[in-house]
Amino acid sequence: MQNNTTDRPTFVTHLECGKTKARYAADQLLGLSDVGSPLIVRYDVEGISKALSKEELRSRPADLWRYREFLPVRQTKNIVSLGEIMTPLIDLPSMQKGQGRLIVKDEGRLPTGSFKARGLCMAVSMAKELGVSKLAMPTNGNAGAAMAAYASRAGMETYIFCPDDTPEINVREIAAQGAKVWRVNGLINDCGKIVGGGKETLHWFDCSTLKEPYRIEGKKTMGLELAEQFNWQLPDVIFYPTGGGTGLIGMWKAFLELKEMGWIEGRLPRMVAVQATGCAPIVKAYDNGEQHAELWQDAHTVAAGIRVPAAIGDFLILNAVRESNGFATAVSDEAIMDARHEASIKDGMLMCPEGAATLAAYQQELKSGRISDDEDCILFNCATGLKYPLPAVDARIDLNRTIDYSTL
Amino acid sequence: MQNNTTDRPTFVTHLECGKTKARYAADQLLGLSDVGSPLIVRYDVEGISKALSKEELRSRPADLWRYREFLPVRQTKNIVSLGEIMTPLIDLPSMQKGQGRLIVKDEGRLPTGSFKARGLCMAVSMAKELGVSKLAMPTNGNAGAAMAAYASRAGMETYIFCPDDTPEINVREIAAQGAKVWRVNGLINDCGKIVGGGKETLHWFDCSTLKEPYRIEGKKTMGLELAEQFNWQLPDVIFYPTGGGTGLIGMWKAFLELKEMGWIEGRLPRMVAVQATGCAPIVKAYDNGEQHAELWQDAHTVAAGIRVPAAIGDFLILNAVRESNGFATAVSDEAIMDARHEASIKDGMLMCPEGAATLAAYQQELKSGRISDDEDCILFNCATGLKYPLPAVDARIDLNRTIDYSTL
Repeated sequence: MQNNTTDRPTFVTHLECGKTKARYAADQLLGLSDVGSPLIVRYDVEGISKALSKEELRSRPADLWRYREFLPVRQTKNIVSLGEIMTPLIDLPSMQKGQGRLIVKDEGRLPTGSFKARGLCMAVSMAKELGVSKLAMPTNGNAGAAMAAYASRAGMETYIFCPDDTPEINVREIAAQGAKVWRVNGLINDCGKIVGGGKETLHWFDCSTLKEPYRIEGKKTMGLELAEQFNWQLPDVIFYPTGGGTGLIGMWKAFLELKEMGWIEGRLPRMVAVQATGCAPIVKAYDNGEQHAELWQDAHTVAAGIRVPAAIGDFLILNAVRESNGFATAVSDEAIMDARHEASIKDGMLMCPEGAATLAAYQQELKSGRISDDEDCILFNCATGLKYPLPAVDARIDLNRTIDYSTL
Repeated sequence: MQNNTTDRPTFVTHLECGKTKARYAADQLLGLSDVGSPLIVRYDVEGISKALSKEELRSRPADLWRYREFLPVRQTKNIVSLGEIMTPLIDLPSMQKGQGRLIVKDEGRLPTGSFKARGLCMAVSMAKELGVSKLAMPTNGNAGAAMAAYASRAGMETYIFCPDDTPEINVREIAAQGAKVWRVNGLINDCGKIVGGGKETLHWFDCSTLKEPYRIEGKKTMGLELAEQFNWQLPDVIFYPTGGGTGLIGMWKAFLELKEMGWIEGRLPRMVAVQATGCAPIVKAYDNGEQHAELWQDAHTVAAGIRVPAAIGDFLILNAVRESNGFATAVSDEAIMDARHEASIKDGMLMCPEGAATLAAYQQELKSGRISDDEDCILFNCATGLKYPLPAVDARIDLNRTIDYSTL
């Protein structure tokens, strides 16, 4: 049987505070840095480029673990995997304007139906490697389901807290995957406080976005995959639905590592952080030239995954957006739902609302002129559209009556 | 960008009646044979083995179209694709008994969340190649969604008829993907009659299971993938949830073609048709030594996808099961739901009820002795577990009160 969890050399040298660049030893259990900033995993990049070639990569099975040398897990036995396939690229011919290609990277194909699987398979594998047996997390839904699935598989206990308007299907999925889960009358940052508050009593490890170092490394594989799928010639613009921002930060990290290795050259893609007008802290900070984002008041949007009023990695998101010559932009719920409908009926691509937000942003920014129609654009569909409500259907046929086919 | 829809030589020689072996010309629009039997696509298998090598295959992107030489679509421009990735193999360490490996092939990762995408991407591509603009189908849910998505992408109209207890999410998904869809107060064979009845008035093409020749060819790729993923050394037993049976027939066809090419040798896997005790026509026919199955009365099971009271390809299913030295078996709804729960909380694998039926069958047949615990077994999880109901969750935390962590 094809096996991608073969032993491979690993190259982590240390961890580094995202803010002060202070150095932390690898291979120990860490959360945030001493100044409360996310920790970034650093590698012997030269070592990777000596150990691995593009040709060798091509011969490996098409999943996330093909990039093992770029990843932190030391021992193969600690890999917790549910089949993290390389996600497909799907063009949207009916939605594309001009010559620039419009392509969806469909992350809904990953385990538990969302891109959260990338981060959580890495976080749970590292938790296993570092001896953790109990995990906790606040979630708008998909991250919780991913953590529950991987942790259950690894034999760990999980405690998960969701805002009370988290879609029913997500809460049920989390429980079905073996986690203890609660609805909380607050938003995700309120749930995060519960996780923080319970550490002393329950001795769980906090797997919140960017509060542990390895979810970024999992999400980084989105950038590695994109680079390889595009034959190491990256597209012009990447639209990314931005809540906690781990994926945007992770992809940018991937591109910088690949550039340092000499595997990609020239201009990197412009990173566009997409938020909803009802919750757009990063957009506001970007527009105001700030390094950090303020807490967004009264956050609301149909796209629950990007309803994140405060992101601990805000400065890392803003850095990546600015360094890449990208931007941050917000779209309305109406534009999101219109885009979702249009892509589904015209191009057969049923996106999640967060994914549809990137399509709405593409449409909006073509009009604004911030992108042009000859640029190749990637949209991230971060979860399967099937987890989200769809309009009801009323049409019926009664077999007790003669069917008038001309009326169908 | 990686591209798997490159021009390739094609090798279809003709079509053949599944019953009489009468020959029909390729490249024309056909439904059933003159005697009302499914038509089987035949290839110049020697031509394939000259044009393609295992090494060449390995270098292609990991999706269904890598097997282009084994497939009927002549012109690349007619390929209608939504990213049909090679589906992952996921072991179930907690559910495995003995030394034989227990592995799920997770078909829920395909477009529209089910293995129906394999058959329908082929049927719709061929419909496009043969000039069809209007399609109709009876469905228990997943096939309809797949047809709707591909047909909408191809610019075709679709008419879809569902039994009235088809899960709400499936009916909504079908409509969201651009189809006209009706609920019907009957079972899938009643819906099939509506499709037959409307042909004259509405001039649609009938895409029912096995009533057109190409869905088998799409499903055949499950067998090609399995063979390649297992390095051309197939596992011992394949448990397949069997409604219309296209996949079982298709896989068996794949194995025979590969054997004819000399790409696989020795004993082929035993094919096990899994049904529910509430709808088990194939099991009854198998047990009674019949060639055909009788219509099952009062069909009912929680696994809607295998609630098929009469399968037009019954004799082809029974042939494959018998030729392979396999068998047919039925499991109870209770066993299905127990197996689903156990795999999800222990191994992180949330299966659909039909997929869980194969796990229940594995457990049952280990006890019966029809399989042994040193055999490597494949279970087909035919759709994402997320499309199916999950138990409700009640736990809440009220931020207006002090949280007593010791009670969590």
